[in-house]
Amino acid sequence: TTLFLRMRELQQLVRDAVPKARHPSQTDLHKRKAHNALHPRDLRAVDATNPHACKNPSVVVRQHVIVCNFPPLRCVVVWDRLLALLPADDHELADELQRQLADQLYPDTSAKPVSTDDVNTSIEENESSQSLPELDDEAPFELRALEAVLRTCTLRLDAACEEVEPVAEETMRELQTARQVALASLERLRHVKNAVSHLEARTRDTAEALEAILDEDEDMCMMRLSLLRERPRLFDPPISPELLTQHEDVELLLESYLQDAEAVQTRLELIRLRIDNAEDLFGMKLDLARNRLITADTIFTLLGMVVGAGAMVGGFFGMNLHQEKSSFVIVCVVTASALMLSTAFVFWYLVRSGTLVLA
Amino acid sequence: TTLFLRMRELQQLVRDAVPKARHPSQTDLHKRKAHNALHPRDLRAVDATNPHACKNPSVVVRQHVIVCNFPPLRCVVVWDRLLALLPADDHELADELQRQLADQLYPDTSAKPVSTDDVNTSIEENESSQSLPELDDEAPFELRALEAVLRTCTLRLDAACEEVEPVAEETMRELQTARQVALASLERLRHVKNAVSHLEARTRDTAEALEAILDEDEDMCMMRLSLLRERPRLFDPPISPELLTQHEDVELLLESYLQDAEAVQTRLELIRLRIDNAEDLFGMKLDLARNRLITADTIFTLLGMVVGAGAMVGGFFGMNLHQEKSSFVIVCVVTASALMLSTAFVFWYLVRSGTLVLA
Amino acid sequence: TTLFLRMRELQQLVRDAVPKARHPSQTDLHKRKAHNALHPRDLRAVDATNPHACKNPSVVVRQHVIVCNFPPLRCVVVWDRLLALLPADDHELADELQRQLADQLYPDTSAKPVSTDDVNTSIEENESSQSLPELDDEAPFELRALEAVLRTCTLRLDAACEEVEPVAEETMRELQTARQVALASLERLRHVKNAVSHLEARTRDTAEALEAILDEDEDMCMMRLSLLRERPRLFDPPISPELLTQHEDVELLLESYLQDAEAVQTRLELIRLRIDNAEDLFGMKLDLARNRLITADTIFTLLGMVVGAGAMVGGFFGMNLHQEKSSFVIVCVVTASALMLSTAFVFWYLVRSGTLVLA
Amino acid sequence: TTLFLRMRELQQLVRDAVPKARHPSQTDLHKRKAHNALHPRDLRAVDATNPHACKNPSVVVRQHVIVCNFPPLRCVVVWDRLLALLPADDHELADELQRQLADQLYPDTSAKPVSTDDVNTSIEENESSQSLPELDDEAPFELRALEAVLRTCTLRLDAACEEVEPVAEETMRELQTARQVALASLERLRHVKNAVSHLEARTRDTAEALEAILDEDEDMCMMRLSLLRERPRLFDPPISPELLTQHEDVELLLESYLQDAEAVQTRLELIRLRIDNAEDLFGMKLDLARNRLITADTIFTLLGMVVGAGAMVGGFFGMNLHQEKSSFVIVCVVTASALMLSTAFVFWYLVRSGTLVLA
Amino acid sequence: TTLFLRMRELQQLVRDAVPKARHPSQTDLHKRKAHNALHPRDLRAVDATNPHACKNPSVVVRQHVIVCNFPPLRCVVVWDRLLALLPADDHELADELQRQLADQLYPDTSAKPVSTDDVNTSIEENESSQSLPELDDEAPFELRALEAVLRTCTLRLDAACEEVEPVAEETMRELQTARQVALASLERLRHVKNAVSHLEARTRDTAEALEAILDEDEDMCMMRLSLLRERPRLFDPPISPELLTQHEDVELLLESYLQDAEAVQTRLELIRLRIDNAEDLFGMKLDLARNRLITADTIFTLLGMVVGAGAMVGGFFGMNLHQEKSSFVIVCVVTASALMLSTAFVFWYLVRSGTLVLA
Repeated sequence: TTLFLRMRELQQLVRDAVPKARHPSQTDLHKRKAHNALHPRDLRAVDATNPHACKNPSVVVRQHVIVCNFPPLRCVVVWDRLLALLPADDHELADELQRQLADQLYPDTSAKPVSTDDVNTSIEENESSQSLPELDDEAPFELRALEAVLRTCTLRLDAACEEVEPVAEETMRELQTARQVALASLERLRHVKNAVSHLEARTRDTAEALEAILDEDEDMCMMRLSLLRERPRLFDPPISPELLTQHEDVELLLESYLQDAEAVQTRLELIRLRIDNAEDLFGMKLDLARNRLITADTIFTLLGMVVGAGAMVGGFFGMNLHQEKSSFVIVCVVTASALMLSTAFVFWYLVRSGTLVLA
Repeated sequence: TTLFLRMRELQQLVRDAVPKARHPSQTDLHKRKAHNALHPRDLRAVDATNPHACKNPSVVVRQHVIVCNFPPLRCVVVWDRLLALLPADDHELADELQRQLADQLYPDTSAKPVSTDDVNTSIEENESSQSLPELDDEAPFELRALEAVLRTCTLRLDAACEEVEPVAEETMRELQTARQVALASLERLRHVKNAVSHLEARTRDTAEALEAILDEDEDMCMMRLSLLRERPRLFDPPISPELLTQHEDVELLLESYLQDAEAVQTRLELIRLRIDNAEDLFGMKLDLARNRLITADTIFTLLGMVVGAGAMVGGFFGMNLHQEKSSFVIVCVVTASALMLSTAFVFWYLVRSGTLVLA
Repeated sequence: TTLFLRMRELQQLVRDAVPKARHPSQTDLHKRKAHNALHPRDLRAVDATNPHACKNPSVVVRQHVIVCNFPPLRCVVVWDRLLALLPADDHELADELQRQLADQLYPDTSAKPVSTDDVNTSIEENESSQSLPELDDEAPFELRALEAVLRTCTLRLDAACEEVEPVAEETMRELQTARQVALASLERLRHVKNAVSHLEARTRDTAEALEAILDEDEDMCMMRLSLLRERPRLFDPPISPELLTQHEDVELLLESYLQDAEAVQTRLELIRLRIDNAEDLFGMKLDLARNRLITADTIFTLLGMVVGAGAMVGGFFGMNLHQEKSSFVIVCVVTASALMLSTAFVFWYLVRSGTLVLA
Repeated sequence: TTLFLRMRELQQLVRDAVPKARHPSQTDLHKRKAHNALHPRDLRAVDATNPHACKNPSVVVRQHVIVCNFPPLRCVVVWDRLLALLPADDHELADELQRQLADQLYPDTSAKPVSTDDVNTSIEENESSQSLPELDDEAPFELRALEAVLRTCTLRLDAACEEVEPVAEETMRELQTARQVALASLERLRHVKNAVSHLEARTRDTAEALEAILDEDEDMCMMRLSLLRERPRLFDPPISPELLTQHEDVELLLESYLQDAEAVQTRLELIRLRIDNAEDLFGMKLDLARNRLITADTIFTLLGMVVGAGAMVGGFFGMNLHQEKSSFVIVCVVTASALMLSTAFVFWYLVRSGTLVLA
Repeated sequence: TTLFLRMRELQQLVRDAVPKARHPSQTDLHKRKAHNALHPRDLRAVDATNPHACKNPSVVVRQHVIVCNFPPLRCVVVWDRLLALLPADDHELADELQRQLADQLYPDTSAKPVSTDDVNTSIEENESSQSLPELDDEAPFELRALEAVLRTCTLRLDAACEEVEPVAEETMRELQTARQVALASLERLRHVKNAVSHLEARTRDTAEALEAILDEDEDMCMMRLSLLRERPRLFDPPISPELLTQHEDVELLLESYLQDAEAVQTRLELIRLRIDNAEDLFGMKLDLARNRLITADTIFTLLGMVVGAGAMVGGFFGMNLHQEKSSFVIVCVVTASALMLSTAFVFWYLVRSGTLVLA
């Protein structure tokens, strides 16, 4: 049960899943092909080996197929199976998808040979679905699979957000209290910020992909793959307006996960703002500290200048006065008082003018 | 009267409130379940114990139920009762909700055993509702309850804004006048800014939740739970266009609170801009102060260098000249005038070139 | 003629103005009250004494009433009068409103006892309305009153903008040329910036209030209070689509003032950008000045170090050499040339490496 | 041929141009005046002498008149003439408008006495219009005039952009290479930035004015002044939906110039970003230079301190040892090596800890 | 086979391609010319020699012609050929376009004499189109050509992004680890940032051009040039609503490339954010380094002042005490301890007050 399918195999699988004989009428005006049929372009988008594969989240609805592309979670939903193309080493993602699918499905699925993600789940009803079971009985497979995919996707976003938040908080705390390790903290904060930006873009694109589907009545209608399989004519081009508005279950499903994505977005936005805030504060603290340092430096320079003046006087007079004690003392006293007075005056002036702020 | 309900109990309560026997016709094309019926997902969103509960404000309208999620105010409105899930320790919120509900309801409510929030209010008409009473008589319970919830929600936002504004003003004033305590003020300003961002996001999301409902004619129609209960067929899927546009009372109600939320948004935005402004000013003040300090430092360095030169001359000549008074005086005078002249020249040059700004 | 009305009086006045007997049919499906009737909420919004009154501009159209809320200009327009709730001390605003109303009204208004704002204007046709008089003859009172209110409002915004712009320019000029008073200028610039932000938010909200009305066909229809009073049935709920699109005069009126508000918005935006720009420039000037200062400081430190070295040599040798003239001269010359050479080298190195920029 | 018209004259001219007798039916429900008739407000907007004239670009379509307001280019287009209100001293603008009009018009225009802008152009077909002449033959005068106005307007924006770009580039280059003239460059950059912001706002508002017209089917219909003049009943209020959608020529015209305006917008945005970028870089260069200076300063301070220590030792021992050569030499050597060793150690420590970065 | 066509030749070519005789009916109400016919303006936009040619990406659909303007890729698609106007020296672009066209076209194209871009591709089916061939058989030439153009365009954007990303990463790494070369790195980073901004604007405009087409049902209909050529009446003005909604293949095509463009946009946005982040970090590192330097400087100044004080004492007393050993030692010891004590005290004070941060 490999998780990676070769593109060609995937196409074969999809082709098997799509009903063959029931092509739409050929009497159509422009000899159009099957309405909204799957195009090679659509599958190329989920082909992780394609260097030009679209890396933005998207949900594409085609006849008989739903292609969900939430990298690294790439899935193709057909009426009775969910084909997942996952990175070979991301077992967590595979497990999570399986768990969500098991939660969604009741024990009526048959074995699926290709992918491990379509699991025969034992009859386990989790509490919340059990409590209102009669309402949930009839959702077709494709919607359950879609819900599993969307739930996996939003849970992943949530988990990533959950993961990044404490790191951000920790780094900000470090930055605030740290004396020495600030550089390393800054470096780490930068990584956190990049991660938050990345996550924000991903979440925003996920939300936009869901919004795009919610804006398209036709796409939401076409999502009922099981119904479409049974009655393929139902969605022949001029779809009846009545039918076009009956996609309430799909809409509620998508809206619910859209809301989840938006909640994650808000949360990430707040984290980003907090980080910006912490950085600004840190910058200001550096500025404050610098001003304090320069204050000290200025005082020492002033004192150094004063003692230099004393030394100059000493250099000129020191020796010459050693015979006359009295004049030596006089010079000493005069010099000392002149220096101290001028220092005091300069201090007073600087403090009064607000240049020196002693604290 | 506990405020916390277990999820299961809540579901039971909601199920009791929703009329049972009057299911929509089963002849429906896709064997669809009750139109827009409550899904377990919807209740999960207001379950505060659920770690993945959606934390974004939302108003969800389902058949017979309105689910309001303005964390921490989570309410479920059914046709004759308002179930509130409040944090156990937020008595203020509970009191406020009760007060608002009492304001909205006239003395025709019966006892509600589950929640204390559905109160039998004595007949107290507050002044403003009294003045035009005949217009307000017929609003059904669900709209009054909804109004109580929305009013509580916007009042809370307003109160939070009211609370944060003086703190912000105070901190900014501190920052402006402070000499020494600046670091603590900055720290506090950062907390205020985070609080403002947080509040802004919450207010914006609240406004968006109200806008989302205002964009959905069907949802506003479905809000008339009492009418729907009496005549459940009225809202069977192809809702008549005439009915779809008759939700003026709901619309006015929502618009009014949307406007309140937007007013809070504007106010918070202005607070944020003022804080940014104060921070920028503070940064510039630090820069100005630093330039002044460095000016002083440079002057002292210059003078120190001058006296150093004097000391050097003294070191070389001082001793050697002590026998010859006249040459000693000559050297002293020459040195002193040379130093003073060159100092004056350097000063003049620096001031003229704009490097030194004496003030 | 007090300008402040008590809420209760206002409600009475509004109730008097609204025709009583002509209630809409009671056969309505949901026993709905008068279509779009005035709700206490709507009046509460213009009640300046209410601490929770909405402070955002809004125009609310209800049956028989238009409530304009452009704080501090709060007006209620009914079919034959304009009730204005103005701050007691803002005589300018009252005068301006009166003047605008006089401009709009031709001499057919009777005395209004409650408010001074509904003035009997003598027949004064201002030039522009005189030139195409036949086109303007038939505008009903309510639209003229609304125009007076909107014109007062946009003129006020314009005047505020006019007032703030020269102050901003002056402060920026000060900042640019100032040497000493920079701190006071910065403080003033901050106040100007706050004022501009505040004004911008107010203008934006005013424009949004006008846009909101322009988006609602029904509201614009309902603004024809006189017509509605004469033929109240005309706007009974299913308003004919034909009627819904006939609000061209209202639309042109609102669009014109929306454009004025947007022009003010653009102007304020440009002022804000200019201020930001001036601040950035000022910051850079500080940085440049600091670099120059530090350059001077570094040079003086270098020279100080050099003379210090000279002093050290003098300290060691000065005395010991005073007996031998020749070796004294040699030491002096060697020391001096060594110091001067090394200083010159260091200078050359620093200048070449770009560290010292002499200018 | 004065370019400035007095408001009153303009109104007279417009009234002459508008067909008089063919007023719409008076049987209209609300005794409405001519559908979408010109209001004094509309002309006031293009009155440059009016201090409250709207300064934002706009295109206003009224019955029989198109009012284009792209300050300083203010034009009124009627079915057979283009009235332009230009600043008296902007001959370039007048020339450009004439040239564009000549390009648009084929030799079928009669003399227009009032304005020089309506020129009798000789039959000169420019190359591009010549190549597909049969397609362009039938455009009515008003659209050609409008195209001339729009083309003049966008060419002016383009020219302004063309003018500001090299100045911006030049100033940025100066800033990058300059050593001494940085302050003047900064000042100039600030002016360029203000100019770019101003131009950006003007371009954006121009684009928005065009978009606003493109959003209004009715306005685009009403632009066919010639058709309307011939068959005034055609646009009587309930304009037929078929007619409402037939404005393809106007739409293409407006879209084309909208695209031009957007191209200018993109270009200006890029210039602004480049300037911001250059400023940031300049700021960082200042910071880097400052760090280098302080590095030098610190080294000199260190050396100064070292020679100070040497001088102190010399001061204490210098003299006292001059009798004993050997101990003098010992003290000298010990002091010198101690100072050099400790200096080396301090250097090594500072470099290792990353404080000193020698380069 | 020159790639540059003279405008006049292009017009001739386009005119040849457009069917001549089948003009729409002349009975049309306003004697309108061919619906949506090509205007000289449209071709002027792709004329690279025109200095006022629009430089913003756009897709313009006219009768029988699609004009794609993605500078430097300018193409005109008619029903059976693709005319490309490429810069003479951009062979890569020409090759890429050819390759893409070959990928799109099956071996049914005849020789095209004018342009090398319309190639007779040998029957080479690339893997992905081969796998679902039956679905792709019937796409008309114009859509294949359009797809080739769009694919070339988005691949170019992708390639430009691919190119700029490693340079950005490399420069950021340099900036982080660099000691000496920072200035050059900053310069390079600025170029990268300008490039990213430029690319972002181009990508955004490309996406907007595609969105604009996707918003216009009629334009998407008119893109079926082959169908239109066969049945020109089909798109006569009142296009049937049914036809208006049948453009699914065009829509899917455009949406797919819109998604690609948006993915590039997200990627560029993240690069820009990372660069901003790296710059902020670099600025903070400079600040941190400066604080460290100033700390060292302050310590040296303090020590310099101390030794200066010692030298002053030595200057005064040194000589005078050399006769009395004991008092000399006493003065030495007292001075030394006083200086060391006061230094230690100042240090302790500065460290405790947080001014000095030793690390």
